[in-house]
Amino acid sequence: MALTTSEASHSIRLVEVVRSDRAGPLSDHVAVEAPLELRINGHRLAVIMRTPGRDDELALGFLLCEGLLRSRADVVRVEEDERACFVNVVFARDRSDAVSEALAARRQVTVGSACGVCGRAGLDGLVAGGRTIQAGWTVGPAMVHALPDRLRDAQPAFARTGGLHAAGLFHRGGHLTASAEDVGRHNAVDKLIGRAVTAGHLPLSDSLLLVSGRASFEIVQKAWAGGIPIVASVSAPSSLAVDLAGQAGITLVGFVRDGRFNVYTRPGRVTPA
Amino acid sequence: MALTTSEASHSIRLVEVVRSDRAGPLSDHVAVEAPLELRINGHRLAVIMRTPGRDDELALGFLLCEGLLRSRADVVRVEEDERACFVNVVFARDRSDAVSEALAARRQVTVGSACGVCGRAGLDGLVAGGRTIQAGWTVGPAMVHALPDRLRDAQPAFARTGGLHAAGLFHRGGHLTASAEDVGRHNAVDKLIGRAVTAGHLPLSDSLLLVSGRASFEIVQKAWAGGIPIVASVSAPSSLAVDLAGQAGITLVGFVRDGRFNVYTRPGRVTPA
Repeated sequence: MALTTSEASHSIRLVEVVRSDRAGPLSDHVAVEAPLELRINGHRLAVIMRTPGRDDELALGFLLCEGLLRSRADVVRVEEDERACFVNVVFARDRSDAVSEALAARRQVTVGSACGVCGRAGLDGLVAGGRTIQAGWTVGPAMVHALPDRLRDAQPAFARTGGLHAAGLFHRGGHLTASAEDVGRHNAVDKLIGRAVTAGHLPLSDSLLLVSGRASFEIVQKAWAGGIPIVASVSAPSSLAVDLAGQAGITLVGFVRDGRFNVYTRPGRVTPA
Repeated sequence: MALTTSEASHSIRLVEVVRSDRAGPLSDHVAVEAPLELRINGHRLAVIMRTPGRDDELALGFLLCEGLLRSRADVVRVEEDERACFVNVVFARDRSDAVSEALAARRQVTVGSACGVCGRAGLDGLVAGGRTIQAGWTVGPAMVHALPDRLRDAQPAFARTGGLHAAGLFHRGGHLTASAEDVGRHNAVDKLIGRAVTAGHLPLSDSLLLVSGRASFEIVQKAWAGGIPIVASVSAPSSLAVDLAGQAGITLVGFVRDGRFNVYTRPGRVTPA
C-alpha cells in the first residue's frame, strides 16, 4: 500500500506497524482523529473529535442540528484557525440571546468521535420537537440497493484506512449530491448538513441520507433537523432511532446490503419491487 | 428468527419491519438504546445513551474513567431507579470537593451512544495524564487470533440484532474473564471497568481488552484509566488512539481478523510466531 506523499490527504496519516503475517515493521495508514474547538462569538462551546477537513461545514451543521442556527442568514462569518485547531462562528446580532443561552447551558463540552448528542440539557432536550416531515415522493428498491456502492465510490479514504465513516446525500432521483468522511458518523452527517446550510438548500425535502455503519438516535435527530425524509444505513438501527424516526415522519431503512434491506418506519415511501 | 418472549432480553426489542425480499410486514429485533441519567450525590452529572443492563457498573466505570472515582472505597452506595431511568452514585464525604468540582465543570451533559469523552473541560482535559503502564508479560499471535471468536461466543445479542458492540476482558493467559454489550463501544468498556471497580480488581495489569469495531481515542483513554496494558480491536484505530496508546505505554493491536493483525505501539508485548 505504498502511497506517494501527494496522495496522502489530511484525513490519513502514515504510521509504523508490525503485521503479524510479515517480518519487520512497515508503514500503514490510519484515519486522522483530532480535536476541533468550536467557538461561537469567540467563546468556546464544544470540543469535537473529528477528522480534519470541511471544518466550517462541520461547525455549521453541528450548530443547525443543535437548534442554535436556523439558516445561513443567522451567521455573519465563519473564522477558521490556520492550524485547524478551532472554528469560530460569528452570529448575527439578533441571535445574541440564543448564543448567550447556549453558552450558559453547555460549557466546555467535548464531543467524542462518535457522539452527536453531547451537551444537551438532559432528557427533555434530546428531541428536537420539530414538525413531522412530509414528503410525497417514493423510491424503488433497485435504487436503495444501489446506494452503498455509489457512496463507496466517493469515499477514497475508507479504502485506505478502514477507519472512516461516510455519509452521502442523494437526490430523490438517485444520484449522489454530496458525501463526507469522518471518524465519526455524526460528524460526516454534520458536514453534509453544514454544506446544505451554506448553499441555502435547507430543508433537504428531496434528499435521502445514507450512512455507513449503524443508525443511532443522533443520526435520525440530525436528519430531522435537516428535513430529510428518508434515512438509510448499511447496518442496524437502535430502538431509539426507530422510535424517533417514527415520531419525525422519517422512513428509516436498515441493513442495505447483500441484496436486501429492512424498512423500520413509514414504509410507504419505498415502493414494492 | 422467531424468539419466544422469555428469550428476549432488555437489550433487544421486537419491532415490525418490511423486508425487501419478503412480502408483508414481519418482526425483527433491534438493539435497545435508551437514556440513563447519571447522578452523583443526587445531582445530575450526565445523560448517557446506552443499552440497559449493568447500569451500576456502567456508572462506576464512567466515573473512574473520568477521574472522579479512584476506587470502590470512594463510593458509599449506588442507587438504581426501578424504571432504569437513573443511577445515583453516593460518594464518601472525603470526596465532596471533587464531586462539587465535577458538577461545576460539567453540567447537564448528554453522552451519545458512541461517545466517551463528552463533557471534558476542553483540550487540556482530554488526556488523563496518568503514569505510563508497565507490564512485563507477553502474548503469542495464536492467542491474539483466537480473541474475537471467544468474545463472539459470549455476545448473544449481537447475533440477533447486528447492532450491539461488545468488549471483553481477557486474562493474560487467554481466557475471557468478563464481557459486556452495548450500543456504544465505550459503554461496554465502562461496564467492564466498573465491574473491576466493584470487585477491587484495579489496576487491570494482567488483562487484555478486546473491542468490536474501531479503536478510537476514548477506548484507549479508558483502558489507560483501568491500567490495561494491551488493547486489541477487530477494526482500525484512529491516529489519536495510536498517539495516546504510545503515550500511555499501551500495546495497541488492530484488525484482528482474517488470520492477521497489526501492532501499532509497543510491539514487544506480542511475541513473534
